Amino acid sequence: MLKKINLKNAAYSIDELYVYDKIGKLNGHVLSVVNVENRTLDFHVHESSDELFYVVEGSFQLETDEGLTEVNAGELIIVPKGMRHRPVVKELSRFLMIELEGTLNEENSGEKYS
Amino acid sequence: MLKKINLKNAAYSIDELYVYDKIGKLNGHVLSVVNVENRTLDFHVHESSDELFYVVEGSFQLETDEGLTEVNAGELIIVPKGMRHRPVVKELSRFLMIELEGTLNEENSGEKYS
Repeated sequence: MLKKINLKNAAYSIDELYVYDKIGKLNGHVLSVVNVENRTLDFHVHESSDELFYVVEGSFQLETDEGLTEVNAGELIIVPKGMRHRPVVKELSRFLMIELEGTLNEENSGEKYS
Repeated sequence: MLKKINLKNAAYSIDELYVYDKIGKLNGHVLSVVNVENRTLDFHVHESSDELFYVVEGSFQLETDEGLTEVNAGELIIVPKGMRHRPVVKELSRFLMIELEGTLNEENSGEKYS
């Protein structure tokens, strides 16, 4: 069955921060929505997958060895595999994430990934 | 270099309908934005790739053998590979598309894909 997903509704329906709600699959990739506030992850690398961040609401800064890139609602950014990075989130923000299945884990996603 | 993309700005910056502006790549997938108005594609199947439609602005109907699904701004829908489908677009609408590189062509995308 086809299922359409409203990204804002999907994010608002999660009642905890850092909980990834898997909303779909695309050719072995996982799409998930997550809400984050006031969190800076450790620097990390995904060796096997590019990673897409789309800001549904709010904003964040993506930090890499090149510096900080501010990404706001309605904007997406793709981190190529192998690039050291970390998201820096201040205000409560809501994200769509896309990456190859198996890419996210407790260490690189904010502790509650399952 | 990291490049963030504002989806609305990317769509508005295309001055023709049915022209796919490739805005990024994710693990062999192409991300593109396209503007469409008053167009119903022929039914078709992508044998090798799931296909993601995200409505940046406007709306469309996705027609499959199950019927019509209305998809509005802020919503996404994923057509599994092998599923016969066609988009039905009336009002001027702006889309983000994601599918494996090589999936779209002149026959299944509105004639101007290159």
